[in-house]
Amino acid sequence: MPQTSQTPSVRSEHDLVGDLDVPVDAYYGVHALRAAHNFPITGRPLSTNPALVRALALVKQAAARANRDLGLLDAERAAVIEAAAAEVAAGALHDEFIVDVIQGGAGTSSNMNANEVIANRALELMGHEKGEYRYLHPNDHVNLSQSTNDVYPTAVNVATVFAAQPLLDALARIQEAFRAKATEFRTVVKMGRTQLQDAVPMTLGQEFGTYAVTIGEDRARLAESLRLMHEINLGATAIGTGLNAPVGYAETARAHLADLTGIDLVTSPDLIEATQDVGAFVHLSGVLKRVAIKLSKICNDLRLLSSGPRAGLNEINLPAVQSGSSIMPGKVNPVIPEVVNQVAFQVVGHDLTISMAAESGQLQLNAFEPIIVHSLSESLRHLAAAVDTLTENCITGITANEDLLRRNVEHSIGLVTALNPRLGYAASTSIAMEALHSGRGVAELVLERDLLSADDLAALLRPERLANLSDLPDCSAVSD
Amino acid sequence: MPQTSQTPSVRSEHDLVGDLDVPVDAYYGVHALRAAHNFPITGRPLSTNPALVRALALVKQAAARANRDLGLLDAERAAVIEAAAAEVAAGALHDEFIVDVIQGGAGTSSNMNANEVIANRALELMGHEKGEYRYLHPNDHVNLSQSTNDVYPTAVNVATVFAAQPLLDALARIQEAFRAKATEFRTVVKMGRTQLQDAVPMTLGQEFGTYAVTIGEDRARLAESLRLMHEINLGATAIGTGLNAPVGYAETARAHLADLTGIDLVTSPDLIEATQDVGAFVHLSGVLKRVAIKLSKICNDLRLLSSGPRAGLNEINLPAVQSGSSIMPGKVNPVIPEVVNQVAFQVVGHDLTISMAAESGQLQLNAFEPIIVHSLSESLRHLAAAVDTLTENCITGITANEDLLRRNVEHSIGLVTALNPRLGYAASTSIAMEALHSGRGVAELVLERDLLSADDLAALLRPERLANLSDLPDCSAVSD
Amino acid sequence: MPQTSQTPSVRSEHDLVGDLDVPVDAYYGVHALRAAHNFPITGRPLSTNPALVRALALVKQAAARANRDLGLLDAERAAVIEAAAAEVAAGALHDEFIVDVIQGGAGTSSNMNANEVIANRALELMGHEKGEYRYLHPNDHVNLSQSTNDVYPTAVNVATVFAAQPLLDALARIQEAFRAKATEFRTVVKMGRTQLQDAVPMTLGQEFGTYAVTIGEDRARLAESLRLMHEINLGATAIGTGLNAPVGYAETARAHLADLTGIDLVTSPDLIEATQDVGAFVHLSGVLKRVAIKLSKICNDLRLLSSGPRAGLNEINLPAVQSGSSIMPGKVNPVIPEVVNQVAFQVVGHDLTISMAAESGQLQLNAFEPIIVHSLSESLRHLAAAVDTLTENCITGITANEDLLRRNVEHSIGLVTALNPRLGYAASTSIAMEALHSGRGVAELVLERDLLSADDLAALLRPERLANLSDLPDCSAVSD
Amino acid sequence: MPQTSQTPSVRSEHDLVGDLDVPVDAYYGVHALRAAHNFPITGRPLSTNPALVRALALVKQAAARANRDLGLLDAERAAVIEAAAAEVAAGALHDEFIVDVIQGGAGTSSNMNANEVIANRALELMGHEKGEYRYLHPNDHVNLSQSTNDVYPTAVNVATVFAAQPLLDALARIQEAFRAKATEFRTVVKMGRTQLQDAVPMTLGQEFGTYAVTIGEDRARLAESLRLMHEINLGATAIGTGLNAPVGYAETARAHLADLTGIDLVTSPDLIEATQDVGAFVHLSGVLKRVAIKLSKICNDLRLLSSGPRAGLNEINLPAVQSGSSIMPGKVNPVIPEVVNQVAFQVVGHDLTISMAAESGQLQLNAFEPIIVHSLSESLRHLAAAVDTLTENCITGITANEDLLRRNVEHSIGLVTALNPRLGYAASTSIAMEALHSGRGVAELVLERDLLSADDLAALLRPERLANLSDLPDCSAVSD
Repeated sequence: MPQTSQTPSVRSEHDLVGDLDVPVDAYYGVHALRAAHNFPITGRPLSTNPALVRALALVKQAAARANRDLGLLDAERAAVIEAAAAEVAAGALHDEFIVDVIQGGAGTSSNMNANEVIANRALELMGHEKGEYRYLHPNDHVNLSQSTNDVYPTAVNVATVFAAQPLLDALARIQEAFRAKATEFRTVVKMGRTQLQDAVPMTLGQEFGTYAVTIGEDRARLAESLRLMHEINLGATAIGTGLNAPVGYAETARAHLADLTGIDLVTSPDLIEATQDVGAFVHLSGVLKRVAIKLSKICNDLRLLSSGPRAGLNEINLPAVQSGSSIMPGKVNPVIPEVVNQVAFQVVGHDLTISMAAESGQLQLNAFEPIIVHSLSESLRHLAAAVDTLTENCITGITANEDLLRRNVEHSIGLVTALNPRLGYAASTSIAMEALHSGRGVAELVLERDLLSADDLAALLRPERLANLSDLPDCSAVSD
Repeated sequence: MPQTSQTPSVRSEHDLVGDLDVPVDAYYGVHALRAAHNFPITGRPLSTNPALVRALALVKQAAARANRDLGLLDAERAAVIEAAAAEVAAGALHDEFIVDVIQGGAGTSSNMNANEVIANRALELMGHEKGEYRYLHPNDHVNLSQSTNDVYPTAVNVATVFAAQPLLDALARIQEAFRAKATEFRTVVKMGRTQLQDAVPMTLGQEFGTYAVTIGEDRARLAESLRLMHEINLGATAIGTGLNAPVGYAETARAHLADLTGIDLVTSPDLIEATQDVGAFVHLSGVLKRVAIKLSKICNDLRLLSSGPRAGLNEINLPAVQSGSSIMPGKVNPVIPEVVNQVAFQVVGHDLTISMAAESGQLQLNAFEPIIVHSLSESLRHLAAAVDTLTENCITGITANEDLLRRNVEHSIGLVTALNPRLGYAASTSIAMEALHSGRGVAELVLERDLLSADDLAALLRPERLANLSDLPDCSAVSD
Repeated sequence: MPQTSQTPSVRSEHDLVGDLDVPVDAYYGVHALRAAHNFPITGRPLSTNPALVRALALVKQAAARANRDLGLLDAERAAVIEAAAAEVAAGALHDEFIVDVIQGGAGTSSNMNANEVIANRALELMGHEKGEYRYLHPNDHVNLSQSTNDVYPTAVNVATVFAAQPLLDALARIQEAFRAKATEFRTVVKMGRTQLQDAVPMTLGQEFGTYAVTIGEDRARLAESLRLMHEINLGATAIGTGLNAPVGYAETARAHLADLTGIDLVTSPDLIEATQDVGAFVHLSGVLKRVAIKLSKICNDLRLLSSGPRAGLNEINLPAVQSGSSIMPGKVNPVIPEVVNQVAFQVVGHDLTISMAAESGQLQLNAFEPIIVHSLSESLRHLAAAVDTLTENCITGITANEDLLRRNVEHSIGLVTALNPRLGYAASTSIAMEALHSGRGVAELVLERDLLSADDLAALLRPERLANLSDLPDCSAVSD
Repeated sequence: MPQTSQTPSVRSEHDLVGDLDVPVDAYYGVHALRAAHNFPITGRPLSTNPALVRALALVKQAAARANRDLGLLDAERAAVIEAAAAEVAAGALHDEFIVDVIQGGAGTSSNMNANEVIANRALELMGHEKGEYRYLHPNDHVNLSQSTNDVYPTAVNVATVFAAQPLLDALARIQEAFRAKATEFRTVVKMGRTQLQDAVPMTLGQEFGTYAVTIGEDRARLAESLRLMHEINLGATAIGTGLNAPVGYAETARAHLADLTGIDLVTSPDLIEATQDVGAFVHLSGVLKRVAIKLSKICNDLRLLSSGPRAGLNEINLPAVQSGSSIMPGKVNPVIPEVVNQVAFQVVGHDLTISMAAESGQLQLNAFEPIIVHSLSESLRHLAAAVDTLTENCITGITANEDLLRRNVEHSIGLVTALNPRLGYAASTSIAMEALHSGRGVAELVLERDLLSADDLAALLRPERLANLSDLPDCSAVSD
């Protein structure tokens, strides 16, 4: 494929490995390109994580402002770096972030990809050609006063706060959906179960109310854990000693970044510790695991309660959202809870990946932060999507089979528990066992044995009394 | 507690740290005692793992024989070492194995505990006092031609083969119990389910038959993985180069150990690799995880099928083995499957522990083999115990509620699937949906719409035909 | 073995399964004995978890007080129940807690074991024989107003608070030990590393200071998570509706339990949710996993920094606490950090077990709480023991090889980073690469190329300046 | 965007939920489109798993052949279905596979997506419009004699065999690369280490040889586990009873599929068990975890051995493939091993996801196979890519610092181990400790104490003798 001399298709860039041809139109440079070659793992470039790209750009913008404020960067370069970074933060040039999401190098390739894209866009804004780094250099100017060791963790923290918001919002919506169902089913009496065995009555409203409450607790825990992301190590530079960052830089850059992101960021009191520690990610991932586990438990319940339609519990009906079988006509399956279960299993797996990566960090830096970031990012996004489809395509459309539910209560042996304080454990057990083996009802056996008057019995066994109906859960509670 | 001068309560022993008083009656020595002080983790000494103590003793016995054969050890010392080791292998002096099961040092403390106990017992047999190591030394004689790096992994392999046998036996018994139930329930027709929704008919015998088959497959996989334990690195000494072990030692010691254990052991073709690699444990633990997962799935099924008694599926009855509630009289819970589930969760957790320990091995040795051994040992023992209680206290006593099962089939919408080839997917779906929404039966709707003759319909819907009753599983199959 | 008629060796007790002989001297009864038979899993009875036994007894004591206050229990029975429970709480009769720590039944067997032991001891105090339950009944009196569903989780929460205290204390001690080392090594300059490659200078004091800071953060997270344990569901009875518990019971019992335990307990605002949710354990276990991971990382560092003595980094010396090899004389190994690593792997495995058990809870109760309790209890105890041996047998005795550390800094290529702001990234890279390939020093190459004056160079490269020595970490910080 | 009446942009399709507009040019239909709406989880459609799409098409092709052979499908329909399926198998229309890789419904949506794409392409081949299902129906013809319950697992097995081949090939290549290095470094003597402490001499060739051997073992285990994938359940239809599949179908379809795929497939002896059991995936994933763990261990070693260049072990040099730092000029990092570590952590996480999904299967089907497939597919692909970049960009370019390695051996205290058989453990320990504390050499101390003659000493301490150089590993061994 011959090229005319006027329009070269590549430009040559240089690094410690040697020269490398870079596509002439590319905003990325030699560092990103080598990394793209070195890490052909997933085929998914950084651009598939827009929150991270945006956060990297905002960090660069904040750094440029700080370097300008402190007199390290002249006004022109500061202005074009800032402008270029702002463009990327606003969504431009994301396709130029070509390094694989799973990458070696502790984030250096991600940082350099950002440095190069912003440098080349800034060069354009200055009227230069891409690659003319003598006017504005990815390391000397865009990365000024910075190291990957502080830029990358800081950007990851910011990106995580960004990426968590949709999940927080989705959890708020599903909590509200459960609360609405709790109200709707407030008076629907049903058998409660422990260990899958009939226990004592409750209401379907109480059952859905617990889901609202438990989600509320998760929201609180998640918000609490996300606060740990607000502490950044910007200004730490390499290993956290702050080498090559001038006095005042950390605070100035932090203030600019807080301004640009709208997050009340604070600088870690010990930058060396902050640079090597990924404990906050382990904590957050642990909380996401908890969210996932609870969602999975709820979905297990929903699938169980809607089992049937004729040979199952058949207590509730999930909305039919698609055909359930290629061979069994009319079959409807709980496909939405099923997909949530699967996302939950993935989140638990990701938590393990994050834990192993955290444990493997050595000395002054954790080299494995990219897989932590990738796993955390997937967990946040998949959970938010799963919660939203669960809310919209399942919870809001659930209906109850009230007659069957009440019938089950009335026939239940578990009613005997309510007689326990009057009859004692031994006599009550005897009645329960006879009911079980004879198929007869608790009430008729009590009357037959003349243990209680019919009136007393009726009063004791009123399901609404048993379910303590005055006590519909207050779903606004957030504590554990 | 005053001591007379004639009977000192301690003897002094020496190691590189210095002098240490050891109880005068102790068979263990300074190395074991220091280790006991250094690792006060679980409070559970090596003696709680008798398979490992036994295996260590057998390795020492085999080594003594090999050293004698090769002229490295005089006849008297060889004889008393062998005799002492044989006593330990037979169950004596296990209380002298005092090092915690979780210990640092890559097994050195376990090996030295064995060296010391055997040395001191051998000294007694020679007519000397315990601690008179100038006559027979834990390192120079009992440990001759050996290193912890080969003795410990070899003993662990042997101990694992020992400890796995009860599990293999338990799995054989439960497979047989499931097979017996498959026969007993051969003609009990029921609804099969996919995704907890009614699917198409099958028999309860088929359902229990699958459990027999799946356990059979697990037995095969487990036996296959245990073969990896037969390859030992005895003779590798430190790091696997065989330093200080004479020519012929590895083969001679292997032959003696095979003779003593009854296991057809082979020497690893690459002793350096064998010394650092714990892949066989990872493999075995992975198989145990599979066994655990399948048992847990089976127990989930049993708990689900026996849910009720009145507001559940109520298809089968598990034997009542204890009262189920302190407050709900007459409640019976599936406590035996529940304990199996919990053991399964533990085994999966242990597999992770083993995986992390394996991954953390460095260079020529994995220093974390003790936690691998401990976890594997617990998994093997707990699984065997769980399987046995499941067999004896649950499976063999299961009964079926045949009438309910048949009634569910007859009322099922899933019968429409059998008409699919005759009516087509679209028409069948229409009938299924009407049945679902009207509560009516599939057969009556088909007749009402005049889609099939009554005779054709009856023939198509015969549950025994649908369940393919001629095809009771052959539970002797072992492939996956 | 014939028994004379005067002294029967057993008494007969009855439950829904039938009659069972119980040893006549046993304080436990039929329920505990059946459970011991049903769950022969680990061979480790409840008595091996004294914090849990103590907590169960305190809950019984609080319940007896509340039942007395509310007029449900007469003064005599309340007094003897309380007295018996207080004895157990103080350490008596623990051997009578015979149910295996891994048990089916959602804790019912643990609760019944407590009910029986306390009932029989109370009967003795009343002057009756053990087993004469007509005077005082395990269910009707000791368990009055209670269900396993609220008693067991409440006791577990209390036990967890008890069991966590030694770990919190151990973490405080190791933080202080690291802080002392940070002070001791305040001026010891060394090379910092990222990705195991020489980076830029720091001090050994800074390195140990990060360990103090990171442990401090873990203490804060752990304390925060333990607060979730303060919320109890006492009064929920079966499934949380409070059935059979009188008005006022929950609050009265809570107040008594808070008084007895010294923990500021609060009653959950939604008892149904609280009864089924084990999210607080998942959260706590997640935090313990984080503690474990960080400890493991620190131990990895210690083992790496002390590698050698001659072919390793050899920066620090861990105290020799035992001989390291059965074959290699004089070998000293980092056995204490190694045992901590192994405990950490176990804690991560336990976290997975807990997560799976939590996910598997169904409907109104999690049946798998016993394995959660067992795993959590082991994690807490093993971590505390591991941290203590690490502090006492390792950290406090660490010494530094200061000469070697300083020599490494002076010969380092990483010094060039300090010149980066003056020379630019490209020129600095060129010098670094020449230093690497030639084996020469950075300073001499800079002077040879006449890039800086000797004075400027010396000022820039002063290690103390590079390591930012004014900035020794403040180990009192607790944020992440 | 107005549409003229002549060219509608959508066609209407119908399912049990109702009518839905499908883009008129779409080959997928109502089922796939609803699924795409229901599962907006990852944004990655099935087309990103081409092995699975290909396998699904091949199953459809085999089924069409079998249906034709057995007279169920007329020649024309059979021919166009086969032709359409063959096109998809060859890579066409993959963009029409729009369902998210994480999906509820146990694979039904994947199967229906295939049925629809093939039906519509077949309709085109017949000269009909897309959507004219009265001529050829996705369910009645393309899915004839099939259920998702057998089609999907069968396709997944086939896809897994396809997807595993690149990993097997990559492992063969890296084994060969390690073997070549073992030969190259055959005579390079170095210190072996246990527990990061200097142990006894070996060669660098031996060290790399172990990596070749261990990879060889993994290849064997992987191949062994993949054999489990050859057993398929095609013909099982719903739940495995074979309902609606004619006699002879299973065998005929299997034979065609074996022919089309080149895999020697066998039909499971118990189709009901095979339909619900995902044990083979758990097994395979367990083996992949083992592969990952070993690769991670090897990469940990490589990073450790190449640490430095001046303050590290510095034994070997990894090729520089990119700049290592944005702030530290000239820094080169082990980025390739680092990315392999991260992939390994991901594979271990995926194994957990798979294990949880397997455990959660209920009754006659595992509804969570899609997440199993997705996780397994990622593990296979990422591992293959990671191994290839490790081979090409790291292993083949490794060089050794031979002088330093030999110097470390000569100065080592570990040499004393070789004197152990001559001097005894106690005397050897004394020498080692003096060497350690004085900084002097073992040899000079032995001579000073007059324990051996100079000649004897020299002979004993020859590193080549110690490393047992005659014993370079035979890398063709495959057993564990």
